[in-house]
Amino acid sequence: MRLETPGVRLLSQTDTLQVSYSGSGVNVLSGLSRFGYSALPVTTLPDNPIGDAAEANLRKLGLLPDHIRREGANLGMYFLETGFGARPSRVTYANRAQSSFNTAGEGAYPFAQIAQSVDAVHFCGISLAMNDTVRRSAVAFAEALKAAGKTVVFDCNYRPALWGEGGYDKARPWYKRMLSLADLVMMNENDAMHVLGMPASAESRAERLAELIPETAGHYAIGTIAGTHRGIEADGRHSLAAFLYRGEPDRRFYWAEPLTFPVYDRIGAGDAYTSGILHGELSGWTPDRTVRFAAAASMLAHTVPGDTPFSSEAQIVRAMTEGFGDIER
Amino acid sequence: MRLETPGVRLLSQTDTLQVSYSGSGVNVLSGLSRFGYSALPVTTLPDNPIGDAAEANLRKLGLLPDHIRREGANLGMYFLETGFGARPSRVTYANRAQSSFNTAGEGAYPFAQIAQSVDAVHFCGISLAMNDTVRRSAVAFAEALKAAGKTVVFDCNYRPALWGEGGYDKARPWYKRMLSLADLVMMNENDAMHVLGMPASAESRAERLAELIPETAGHYAIGTIAGTHRGIEADGRHSLAAFLYRGEPDRRFYWAEPLTFPVYDRIGAGDAYTSGILHGELSGWTPDRTVRFAAAASMLAHTVPGDTPFSSEAQIVRAMTEGFGDIER
Amino acid sequence: MRLETPGVRLLSQTDTLQVSYSGSGVNVLSGLSRFGYSALPVTTLPDNPIGDAAEANLRKLGLLPDHIRREGANLGMYFLETGFGARPSRVTYANRAQSSFNTAGEGAYPFAQIAQSVDAVHFCGISLAMNDTVRRSAVAFAEALKAAGKTVVFDCNYRPALWGEGGYDKARPWYKRMLSLADLVMMNENDAMHVLGMPASAESRAERLAELIPETAGHYAIGTIAGTHRGIEADGRHSLAAFLYRGEPDRRFYWAEPLTFPVYDRIGAGDAYTSGILHGELSGWTPDRTVRFAAAASMLAHTVPGDTPFSSEAQIVRAMTEGFGDIER
Amino acid sequence: MRLETPGVRLLSQTDTLQVSYSGSGVNVLSGLSRFGYSALPVTTLPDNPIGDAAEANLRKLGLLPDHIRREGANLGMYFLETGFGARPSRVTYANRAQSSFNTAGEGAYPFAQIAQSVDAVHFCGISLAMNDTVRRSAVAFAEALKAAGKTVVFDCNYRPALWGEGGYDKARPWYKRMLSLADLVMMNENDAMHVLGMPASAESRAERLAELIPETAGHYAIGTIAGTHRGIEADGRHSLAAFLYRGEPDRRFYWAEPLTFPVYDRIGAGDAYTSGILHGELSGWTPDRTVRFAAAASMLAHTVPGDTPFSSEAQIVRAMTEGFGDIER
Amino acid sequence: MRLETPGVRLLSQTDTLQVSYSGSGVNVLSGLSRFGYSALPVTTLPDNPIGDAAEANLRKLGLLPDHIRREGANLGMYFLETGFGARPSRVTYANRAQSSFNTAGEGAYPFAQIAQSVDAVHFCGISLAMNDTVRRSAVAFAEALKAAGKTVVFDCNYRPALWGEGGYDKARPWYKRMLSLADLVMMNENDAMHVLGMPASAESRAERLAELIPETAGHYAIGTIAGTHRGIEADGRHSLAAFLYRGEPDRRFYWAEPLTFPVYDRIGAGDAYTSGILHGELSGWTPDRTVRFAAAASMLAHTVPGDTPFSSEAQIVRAMTEGFGDIER
Amino acid sequence: MRLETPGVRLLSQTDTLQVSYSGSGVNVLSGLSRFGYSALPVTTLPDNPIGDAAEANLRKLGLLPDHIRREGANLGMYFLETGFGARPSRVTYANRAQSSFNTAGEGAYPFAQIAQSVDAVHFCGISLAMNDTVRRSAVAFAEALKAAGKTVVFDCNYRPALWGEGGYDKARPWYKRMLSLADLVMMNENDAMHVLGMPASAESRAERLAELIPETAGHYAIGTIAGTHRGIEADGRHSLAAFLYRGEPDRRFYWAEPLTFPVYDRIGAGDAYTSGILHGELSGWTPDRTVRFAAAASMLAHTVPGDTPFSSEAQIVRAMTEGFGDIER
Repeated sequence: MRLETPGVRLLSQTDTLQVSYSGSGVNVLSGLSRFGYSALPVTTLPDNPIGDAAEANLRKLGLLPDHIRREGANLGMYFLETGFGARPSRVTYANRAQSSFNTAGEGAYPFAQIAQSVDAVHFCGISLAMNDTVRRSAVAFAEALKAAGKTVVFDCNYRPALWGEGGYDKARPWYKRMLSLADLVMMNENDAMHVLGMPASAESRAERLAELIPETAGHYAIGTIAGTHRGIEADGRHSLAAFLYRGEPDRRFYWAEPLTFPVYDRIGAGDAYTSGILHGELSGWTPDRTVRFAAAASMLAHTVPGDTPFSSEAQIVRAMTEGFGDIER
Repeated sequence: MRLETPGVRLLSQTDTLQVSYSGSGVNVLSGLSRFGYSALPVTTLPDNPIGDAAEANLRKLGLLPDHIRREGANLGMYFLETGFGARPSRVTYANRAQSSFNTAGEGAYPFAQIAQSVDAVHFCGISLAMNDTVRRSAVAFAEALKAAGKTVVFDCNYRPALWGEGGYDKARPWYKRMLSLADLVMMNENDAMHVLGMPASAESRAERLAELIPETAGHYAIGTIAGTHRGIEADGRHSLAAFLYRGEPDRRFYWAEPLTFPVYDRIGAGDAYTSGILHGELSGWTPDRTVRFAAAASMLAHTVPGDTPFSSEAQIVRAMTEGFGDIER
Repeated sequence: MRLETPGVRLLSQTDTLQVSYSGSGVNVLSGLSRFGYSALPVTTLPDNPIGDAAEANLRKLGLLPDHIRREGANLGMYFLETGFGARPSRVTYANRAQSSFNTAGEGAYPFAQIAQSVDAVHFCGISLAMNDTVRRSAVAFAEALKAAGKTVVFDCNYRPALWGEGGYDKARPWYKRMLSLADLVMMNENDAMHVLGMPASAESRAERLAELIPETAGHYAIGTIAGTHRGIEADGRHSLAAFLYRGEPDRRFYWAEPLTFPVYDRIGAGDAYTSGILHGELSGWTPDRTVRFAAAASMLAHTVPGDTPFSSEAQIVRAMTEGFGDIER
Repeated sequence: MRLETPGVRLLSQTDTLQVSYSGSGVNVLSGLSRFGYSALPVTTLPDNPIGDAAEANLRKLGLLPDHIRREGANLGMYFLETGFGARPSRVTYANRAQSSFNTAGEGAYPFAQIAQSVDAVHFCGISLAMNDTVRRSAVAFAEALKAAGKTVVFDCNYRPALWGEGGYDKARPWYKRMLSLADLVMMNENDAMHVLGMPASAESRAERLAELIPETAGHYAIGTIAGTHRGIEADGRHSLAAFLYRGEPDRRFYWAEPLTFPVYDRIGAGDAYTSGILHGELSGWTPDRTVRFAAAASMLAHTVPGDTPFSSEAQIVRAMTEGFGDIER
Repeated sequence: MRLETPGVRLLSQTDTLQVSYSGSGVNVLSGLSRFGYSALPVTTLPDNPIGDAAEANLRKLGLLPDHIRREGANLGMYFLETGFGARPSRVTYANRAQSSFNTAGEGAYPFAQIAQSVDAVHFCGISLAMNDTVRRSAVAFAEALKAAGKTVVFDCNYRPALWGEGGYDKARPWYKRMLSLADLVMMNENDAMHVLGMPASAESRAERLAELIPETAGHYAIGTIAGTHRGIEADGRHSLAAFLYRGEPDRRFYWAEPLTFPVYDRIGAGDAYTSGILHGELSGWTPDRTVRFAAAASMLAHTVPGDTPFSSEAQIVRAMTEGFGDIER
Repeated sequence: MRLETPGVRLLSQTDTLQVSYSGSGVNVLSGLSRFGYSALPVTTLPDNPIGDAAEANLRKLGLLPDHIRREGANLGMYFLETGFGARPSRVTYANRAQSSFNTAGEGAYPFAQIAQSVDAVHFCGISLAMNDTVRRSAVAFAEALKAAGKTVVFDCNYRPALWGEGGYDKARPWYKRMLSLADLVMMNENDAMHVLGMPASAESRAERLAELIPETAGHYAIGTIAGTHRGIEADGRHSLAAFLYRGEPDRRFYWAEPLTFPVYDRIGAGDAYTSGILHGELSGWTPDRTVRFAAAASMLAHTVPGDTPFSSEAQIVRAMTEGFGDIER
């Protein structure tokens, strides 16, 4: 549950909040649902009116509820105070530790059975930050998919505030385990350096990326690694340099031309990028087209209120090829 | 009736809509009313609470209801999802075909009598897209004005979505008829090429304009043709190059220096330009002053929520001569 | 699409509207979905952002989109100005004639195939008011269901404003045809007298009901007829006397004890009653339990904003047995 | 300008206010405009954006701006905290003394000329509370009307908070002067006792009314006096006993049957009553019909948000003859 | 933090929530602050933007922040879906277990020092439901007050949802301990029967009260016990029978005459009653005046949005003596 | 009281206003309260619900009410229509002359006693514009502070609209008197030229500043003078060049490097600058650090809705050293 202050107000300045139901997994699945996939979250929602509202809203976003369990009483929340100019946006997490998702028992989901019925599963590094039960479940599910010959997607998404002090060391073994099971990984050089603890000889971000991503792909036998470098301009616009690295036997980077654009809602834009990469990879597109499509999908996700991407494939393709347009009427 | 999603949301993301009552004619008349004219729409509104609300809001905008008929049950609507950055604004029309305006019978308005009581009438190309009855009524009204020696203003405003497939061919004879009756025409080179089907030898917009507008003015014996070229900058600002062409015996273009500015609400800004041109022409200003005034009026109309221009003559004159200002207090 | 003024305002008094997506069929299906049924509307929505929003909201209400076609550009709308005390609520219909549902061609839906996959289908008299194609489609669908041995539910829902002048005579043959195909009918003595043109000898509503409903059930061989008598108290509360009549061989009325209660949103309360009757009948409950359950479902539907019922079976059962309660915490 | 807290909140509890433009005169004129009269306020509004907004909203309510002057910088305001149940509504006046209306000079309006062009003028006792200039202007205008043979309507509307301490004594001479010029007066026995200082021998309100109103009508040679007695029921509903007294030669009371009804917005309901009385008197209706019409108009005005009556003659006539109704659709 | 759906909507029906900061202790203190007391909560708020907002809002309500600690990251929340008529209001608790208040260590507050500086402290049974640390702190604080000769107020406020299964048995020893330390207790016969496990011979609520309250006061040597019996009428109004029992040597009940009234926001009305009782007792009023004052304070608290009482002593006194009033202006 | 139209609307376009309670003094004190100072306004608020709301909101902002008197019925207001791009923001003052603050009698505040209990007092030039009583009170208070050896801060804040025609001449003697008492003054070269009537030989703003500020500091023996030069870029961003001048014996300017940034709410940003200067001076920081801190505080105040600064010292220090950042999560 995202609870957002209206009109870039501070929490102290408002007596209304805008509520939506999102999260990294929801965003990736919602993006895929807009591209025509059947998208099913594997999760647990509380068995109370909060859970009812969450489930109804996930259905509205195009997600199918077949693997949603209902149990417990809490839902992970965050408060968002959208920033402006020199004032950064601020996220305050609440109610995480005791959420229904995090307190679901280890055998709660029939992973082997689900693994049979799907093509690919997206794992988010945020869920690894929760507790040992969630982490063990994630590994077990990834192993079941591997055994069934299905695609494992792993999105590093390391969140310092959730792992706390000494977080990199706590996270490292689990990230390594997930990388060794993954076919497609979302990450960049910071994840390699900090989470995986890989040393970098270069100084610039670009050089470090060129050094560490191929090394990671080689070491963990990962087919595809994709990610972005984000920059913030003096006038507040963001710029995005998106890459897709192909491992053996291709072993090379594909870059989209950098995009620069104004930002309405930055949260979830990384998830839109992920959904674009997945769509390209699952559709057998060329890496070049995939990375350009995903970058445009991410750019568009910055223009829509809320975390969740709403663009259709046609809208993204048009944004890949045309500049900013006048009204459509 | 304009139904707009709040806060650049998509229609799927909102359960409230902001409602206003506008339209090209309303906007032009509202602009003129702010310049001190008596502005009277000639139209039909539904005879139900929707019509009550529309009429009350037109009165609020400064329009006088003397020639508003009340009949039928439908009002033309459009839904507006305001875009942001790389995501264009989107207009979805509804309830057009059966609107009270479009279903009013041919003899509904006493055109000859109205023609006696006015100085000038503004015709909008959007209404020509409706049906044959509306088109015939427009021509009849323009002929009545011509006969009474009054000024006929024709605004091309070609809307592809309303004319449908093969629209240019359907529209052409009606546009030609209106042009032959008009004293003052709002158009640019695209209208000449596509709607009138005139061939252009040049490649650039500017050259085509220079070629086709004098030709049009000459062919249809039009006193004044005015219009704009709009550009969209990389940072999302719009720029406006405004022209006014004087036909016989002057036969030359007058250009306002180009304006570049941020945009809050782009819809209706063309109508504000039209109202500025009309005010200058009806007041006997120099073409140079008229085109600069109209360009500034249009720029200001981009800064106000809603379709309808709200600037006074004094505010527009100040915007012609001063840069962006600090608070007025 | 329901467009509602906020806070019992008139349309002239507001510049925001609350939007929701409902309709008699949506309401009945949404109620059934809360009771655990798979609920699939057979309809056509526009192929534009309005249709996207409508479909997303139907999914949110628990409806499955398998039989929703997307075509055309218009959605039926109504404007609601909620009344207060001595001022009645006012509904203004818009955009009906040209809606995607009403302009879908005759062979648009694979009725025979759908008939195989369902248990029961609910037909609403409102749709019969549209045009001949819709009417013919309804009859064809009902015949297909009859042939497949499935349950046909027909809800009379006669709306004078939609049928226009001489409406009863226009409606009569279609209503008679639907009644002859129906297993379960929602109606009361007014439908019998006005729509079917049956003469009544009694003066009071209760006596007329007792006279005409058995006659109707007998004539058209209808298994179950259910309906309500609504009263409005001096203090603004509504009262509901609900009945269920069983045809051959039972041939008797079952009445729920009358309920009196304050009203928040009256629209859709009849549909909640229908969904309650359907649930009881499809579950094989005693007529007595069914009619009491449906009456309580309808009472609760008056307490929730919007057309659509939201109560679970447990909440309805509690409302059947307990008085007004204090906070649940 | 009325600034109202939303949702029965206290001023301390809200950071939004709902703004409307009303006042006793506006309400009476708006009511008359709905009955088909040309309604022109004689007033002064500030010459700034507040005045622009006020004038636009008066036009929206149906008032014609011909006699509205624009000068000065202040508009009278009041803050409204709507009560609930045992908590009464609370009005806090602001910005009264220095309003443009109150600071307009004595010769500001061409009273003699206006008197020629109207049928009747409504004077409100609230304006007498302002200052000597306003009071002298009111008397001068009333004298001009008398001289021109037009109808003078005087509405006592005594407001203790505006007159301050010793208010009755300050007000008395001005009220007496206005009564001596008036043809139609809105008042009840409290005005007679407190403002006019007439002694009452009876104890009950009804008896005092029966005693004092004829005496007042006789003494000041007033043709018609009308007013109401309001009661508040234990369940929060209000009841209204409305009377119209005819002076010479009829000399009798006409009462409407008492009405009891729930209340949404009580402010302005007295003005709706006044507009109903005026309509009846100006139309030459029987006193009986007039008082019943005005009582129903007042009842309906309690059901609409805001001060200003919105009911048409047809709606009021229906409310006179029918009970509370179900939805109109 | 209270998160409330607007307009009696369900959580599934809204994308905005109204946020306020309240709780039983806040409400009692806010009430007292309006009566002129210095009111200081002893609590811990999170050290993040949520805590900032909470502290700012408590200051706004009139509370002094001297004993507010800032630590941790979570604040107890509840979601409120306000009911209507037959649909009860629904409270869903969230984020309780890990709140800053509940996770503050045992020595967090300097109880002995605070005890010296205050006259009385109000303890709420809700806080006892949290965990052993909170419970031990409450007892330690009460003991420190007793030692310092200050007044201990204990409000039973048993919440089944917070204590869970077998809650009465878990709660009993702690409630007994608090009662043995308390000078003034808020409770009724249900607390005696269920929480204290006292057997009742009578059947009616009134008789059980008459039996068990004196017994409790005698057993625990409590000076004053006060409470209410709430009833809900068929038309939705609530009624309140309020009592105050004086222990040794008076040993008798004082009852306020029952009040019946419509309800806007029922939450916190019990806390307003408590603040009224405290004010009377601390001011040395007669028991009769105290109980009538507290009952009127509670009635008024039902009429204000939000949990927190806002009435001044003067407003309460007027509500004790007058009926429902018309507008104050 | 600030009454603001939502969403850059004009006053004519809205029926809701956002209300907050601010003012130059409130803003400076609120900024200081965030830096850890006890901040006490010396003022008079109306003794009615408007005053209640104002006082509660000042407490919420962190101000202590010890020196707030309650008397009278009016509060100074202003209406704000936020501009956009080429349309400047517009402030309309209301209700100033008769506000409780302006009508408080000369001996209303115990200045000598307050002077003993404080370190420094901030005087705002806006209050000097009110009337002679306010002006005399300001001088008396400043003299009392001087006598008690406390710091007098004077903020020139000349507002042409409040002083009216011939304002500079009216203001001059009072400004001179305040400058002769002040230790720290907020002003720039415009104040010196226009208010003090000092002649400037240079043409550019920078040169005039370099000429007139040292002269002013020397003439009035002022320790520190600080201020800013604001520029508006073509893309709508503002830029701020901030200076602090040290008088005897230092006699030099300290400049912060210029900042350029987008603007959300410009009002009150000067007050944030003042609070930053005061914090640095009262803390004994180097002039260089003080002016850079104050400039960053002002920049951040442009990013928060409302007049009042909300940034903590830590947030300002970070903005001094870092560029625009991504989300904090």
